[in-house]
Amino acid sequence: MPSGEDRLIARFFRPLARAPEALDFADDAAVMAPPPGADLVLKTDGVIEGVHFFPEDPADSVAKKALRANLSDLAAKGAEPLGFLLSLALNDKADEKWLAAFAAGLGADADAYRCPLLGGDTDRTPGLISVSIAAFGHLPHGTMVKRSGARAGDRIVVTGTIGDAALGLALRREPARAQRAKLSLSERAHLAGRYLLPDPKVALAPALRAYASAAIDISDGLAGDLMKLAEASNVSARIETERLPLSPAAQKMVAAEPALLQTVLSGGEDYEVLAAVPAASLAALHAAAAEAGIALSEIATARAGDGVEIIGPDGRPVALSRPSYSHF
Amino acid sequence: MPSGEDRLIARFFRPLARAPEALDFADDAAVMAPPPGADLVLKTDGVIEGVHFFPEDPADSVAKKALRANLSDLAAKGAEPLGFLLSLALNDKADEKWLAAFAAGLGADADAYRCPLLGGDTDRTPGLISVSIAAFGHLPHGTMVKRSGARAGDRIVVTGTIGDAALGLALRREPARAQRAKLSLSERAHLAGRYLLPDPKVALAPALRAYASAAIDISDGLAGDLMKLAEASNVSARIETERLPLSPAAQKMVAAEPALLQTVLSGGEDYEVLAAVPAASLAALHAAAAEAGIALSEIATARAGDGVEIIGPDGRPVALSRPSYSHF
Repeated sequence: MPSGEDRLIARFFRPLARAPEALDFADDAAVMAPPPGADLVLKTDGVIEGVHFFPEDPADSVAKKALRANLSDLAAKGAEPLGFLLSLALNDKADEKWLAAFAAGLGADADAYRCPLLGGDTDRTPGLISVSIAAFGHLPHGTMVKRSGARAGDRIVVTGTIGDAALGLALRREPARAQRAKLSLSERAHLAGRYLLPDPKVALAPALRAYASAAIDISDGLAGDLMKLAEASNVSARIETERLPLSPAAQKMVAAEPALLQTVLSGGEDYEVLAAVPAASLAALHAAAAEAGIALSEIATARAGDGVEIIGPDGRPVALSRPSYSHF
Repeated sequence: MPSGEDRLIARFFRPLARAPEALDFADDAAVMAPPPGADLVLKTDGVIEGVHFFPEDPADSVAKKALRANLSDLAAKGAEPLGFLLSLALNDKADEKWLAAFAAGLGADADAYRCPLLGGDTDRTPGLISVSIAAFGHLPHGTMVKRSGARAGDRIVVTGTIGDAALGLALRREPARAQRAKLSLSERAHLAGRYLLPDPKVALAPALRAYASAAIDISDGLAGDLMKLAEASNVSARIETERLPLSPAAQKMVAAEPALLQTVLSGGEDYEVLAAVPAASLAALHAAAAEAGIALSEIATARAGDGVEIIGPDGRPVALSRPSYSHF
């Protein structure tokens, strides 16, 4: 007589146990022979109801957001996915329909990113839904792209566009902002979608290993994450906000409400890659990014010294009330 | 200007980043060169306030319980610890004093079990404190002890004593039970301690690899976990409850309140190892357990067929209202 927990796992998650390492979720643990000569890159990140997603968000996107946040870190480190463990705390809102959608989203992403679910843990909670993931990647021994490798003269590049997710969240909290900025329906959908579903730059991992001297996943906002990279590398950087890659929707929102530049710079959840690249490797990284369909923008040059200076459209330094998103 | 989250990590958790793989918690991820020729065993388990621990439980024991639950699974699979990732959701109760005690407990166990903290994720939650851990172990390729390897004729053994943690929880919920069973103060403390702090049988891992045909960590109750092992191995088993290893405190509680036999059999959180051993290897496993200071009791013999029968002190089958602890 299987328990309720066993039945839940059998119904919703065992169909995702397609990797042999998962042992059909019929044992206490997963077992994996790591690729010979590889280093493993280990990351844990999660999402909590009411903190990282709205209670009414679709369950499939909740699952995908949790997994993609981890994949984004692996990508920034130059690692390719091997698999993940899932730790779920479920409350009464997580009924059969919610779980079916959650599992469908998770399975679709596990396939799309070739990052299989290897095992997990499911608990009922009287509190909030939380989804914690531990993801494992691999790369050739000694090739992880750290935060600390940037040198003076390296170019600082960023993938995609910055600020969209944080602006999407600002729109969720105050929809009238869309009217003020005269956003089109598709611009609204773009920002909302960037908040709901990160687009981790998994395909860029091999090129980052080959060409980047340092990299970091932008999850807490460009300003703070650049400070972390600069500090770890003992370099300084000066960014002109006019050179930042903003989507048309983000440009309109900042134009209508200049204070939103702070949100763009430090709102978080971009899940883009910020990297330092020696000038001699810049063309090769650009070519690899183009090949992978990933936009890449040069935003600064690393210099000797320390500190990050952000220069606004008026030519004066931008004072950030807080450089990074932080829970504390 | 580090964020509050960065300061919290620097103050409470960076001192635990003693393993080189943790990169001083100053990067996006941990990186590890797995032992050559090893398989990795991957497990995630966690504890939630009000579900797996009481809000007033000491924070150091909350940390230890979360880690030890994972170590118990690794041990049952024959794996030795490599390290772990920590995912923390903290509410306002987790003040500086709580965090300092939590980190101290975690660090003490990481040292004691040689299982270093490699990385983590810390979020503030408006909900309940939760501690999710993903632990990694290693063993020689192909040697993981599965649930499915038991054969008819193998002896079924169990480490330690059964039911203490579940009885400790029953005492927490209804302290008057201690008087009814005439428990001494030290017997009460024994049961309370077994609920608060599991004693994972990490030292038995090499012997389980060498001698056991199958094993499972008893976390959801002996009855249900034996059913899982028997089903996975296509064997049957018949247990006489009088042969189960009970502590003196547990014996007194069951004598005073016979219905507590159900709690002993299916209450969960034993964190002992249930293993099947070919008769020819039994003496060697006993010797290895004695060497490691771990009690080992033979409770049954695996037979052809299926099903687990539990025979009570009156010689009649015990009907369990539920064989396993389950959240659902």
